[in-house]
Amino acid sequence: MEEERLHRQLDFLLEIDRLKQVERQTSIVGGHRRENTAEHSWHLAMYALVLREWSNVDVDLSHVLALCLVHDIVEIDAGDTFAYDIAAHVDKEDRERRAADRLFGILPEDQGAYLRELWEEYEAQETPESRFANAVDRMQPAMLNHHADENSPWRRHGVTRPQAMRRLSPIGDGSHVLWEHTRQIIAEAVERGNLVEEA
Amino acid sequence: MEEERLHRQLDFLLEIDRLKQVERQTSIVGGHRRENTAEHSWHLAMYALVLREWSNVDVDLSHVLALCLVHDIVEIDAGDTFAYDIAAHVDKEDRERRAADRLFGILPEDQGAYLRELWEEYEAQETPESRFANAVDRMQPAMLNHHADENSPWRRHGVTRPQAMRRLSPIGDGSHVLWEHTRQIIAEAVERGNLVEEA
Repeated sequence: MEEERLHRQLDFLLEIDRLKQVERQTSIVGGHRRENTAEHSWHLAMYALVLREWSNVDVDLSHVLALCLVHDIVEIDAGDTFAYDIAAHVDKEDRERRAADRLFGILPEDQGAYLRELWEEYEAQETPESRFANAVDRMQPAMLNHHADENSPWRRHGVTRPQAMRRLSPIGDGSHVLWEHTRQIIAEAVERGNLVEEA
Repeated sequence: MEEERLHRQLDFLLEIDRLKQVERQTSIVGGHRRENTAEHSWHLAMYALVLREWSNVDVDLSHVLALCLVHDIVEIDAGDTFAYDIAAHVDKEDRERRAADRLFGILPEDQGAYLRELWEEYEAQETPESRFANAVDRMQPAMLNHHADENSPWRRHGVTRPQAMRRLSPIGDGSHVLWEHTRQIIAEAVERGNLVEEA
């Protein structure tokens, strides 16, 4: 039984290696390649670790970190959906639900249920921890996009200021301080021509 | 003051993006490229999250996860040192200490000290959390190397069974169960020709 349990855990850990091959729209610093979702998940967890003091309410660190590490694993099957691509969001939920069934189903039942709950908690955005994880998940690519200038996916896709404001305003649900800072970033990005002003 | 503190935190979070460019000897599953240290750190944290029940003693999850996420950041300046490269280990400590000074020095003082302590705790291997983090840090590349066969860095560098045993036996300090399983992996790897038997 112990052996069987460990094997399922190790099968899962081998399978999720594929998150290293899921490409995002965001570029890494220096701009010579896109970021993948595995390294994004690490970066996100570091954001949470370093910025936790700015959460609107006290959050449990291990819970926030677990949400950051786990919530994108469904992208192994479902792919990354670009934040500003409305069409792709139509079937995103279905794709991700099937992915969660398959991937978390590799684990022993109790652990599969635990990881699935983490993913569902993140999606529902009802707990302080999921709101803070979502805040840093929206802030991290904005910071990279802002830094990238010519390589910015904002610029590549002609994203407008109102689109960025809509996409990023949920940062305030997790942290007023981080949202205030992100608003300044958006204003600077419009000045630099990374975001379109739109009349 | 608040603004200044946040700026130092965000400068640090931008700087550590460079961990995505530090290449390791290990290949990702599929073998078409090397793993980088940022995605390795995510994978490691997932190992810790999923395998924690096998730790020899109870460990604090948030502390283990923080160790997994932080302890390789010094590689941004110091580079990854291949586990089986004895010559490169001679000045590893010096290189990493200078890296820790610079990188953690970007943060506000209290946080820089906290992250530096995490790194030093990991290096010292005296706490249950650092021993368990080290166990999964040694196990994760062994699992990938075993799975890679022809692309295995074990094979590329002609690593022998006694070398692998020495390198991996500290897994037992964190988890007897995981070390027992790793011993089986080593035996299989010798059979498959991924490790050299050596008379």
